[in-house]
Amino acid sequence: MPDPKLMEAAVHEYVAAFDANSPERVAALFAPDANVEDPIGSPAHVGHDAILGFYTASMQTGAKLKLEGPVRIAGPYAAFAFSVLLNLGGKDMHVDVIDTFKFDDDNKVIEMRAYFGPTNMHGFA
Amino acid sequence: MPDPKLMEAAVHEYVAAFDANSPERVAALFAPDANVEDPIGSPAHVGHDAILGFYTASMQTGAKLKLEGPVRIAGPYAAFAFSVLLNLGGKDMHVDVIDTFKFDDDNKVIEMRAYFGPTNMHGFA
Repeated sequence: MPDPKLMEAAVHEYVAAFDANSPERVAALFAPDANVEDPIGSPAHVGHDAILGFYTASMQTGAKLKLEGPVRIAGPYAAFAFSVLLNLGGKDMHVDVIDTFKFDDDNKVIEMRAYFGPTNMHGFA
Repeated sequence: MPDPKLMEAAVHEYVAAFDANSPERVAALFAPDANVEDPIGSPAHVGHDAILGFYTASMQTGAKLKLEGPVRIAGPYAAFAFSVLLNLGGKDMHVDVIDTFKFDDDNKVIEMRAYFGPTNMHGFA
């Protein structure tokens, strides 16, 4: 079973890596064969290269993450609420998101799901 | 696909039903063959009678729910952060939780997962 302290640290490193604009630091949190559905139900990004590519593209928008409330830890799962803050064309926008991470025994994220949709996107119109 | 407005209303009804101490109102939100893992990874409560029994027991603690932040809606999924507020033996306690609901095409919850663990329980010691 993964270590709750390391799981929580991984969530904070995920937010910090966005601040540092480092997709490599995000990708390093994942197991080599991890899969990412962002949002849940969309085609998965599977494996290190696909995940690195996905986060490289995400960070090109300048997106920053702001945690909202404590990280929930349930066995091998972490869940956390946050806002994605964007400024596109001088306009402030944000998206309200909840992510779940499932960790393996090496404390790496093996499965990520992001929960958000059109009703959670603000300032885009 | 379920209706995002009805999905969000179901989450608010879930909170209101706890306030009203009505496990029947909670159970009515679920499909007849729904399954509930609370917390995720624990043995599932499957079907209307098991779910009604689970919420009847939960409400006997006097637990109330306080939503924290907007409900996230992703396709057939809703995710939401909240606190469970308890007063046991004159002592205030709370648990930080994130739930995910998956809805069927009739806008009923078919699958529920609760994310919390020991690090999210406060005031119990």
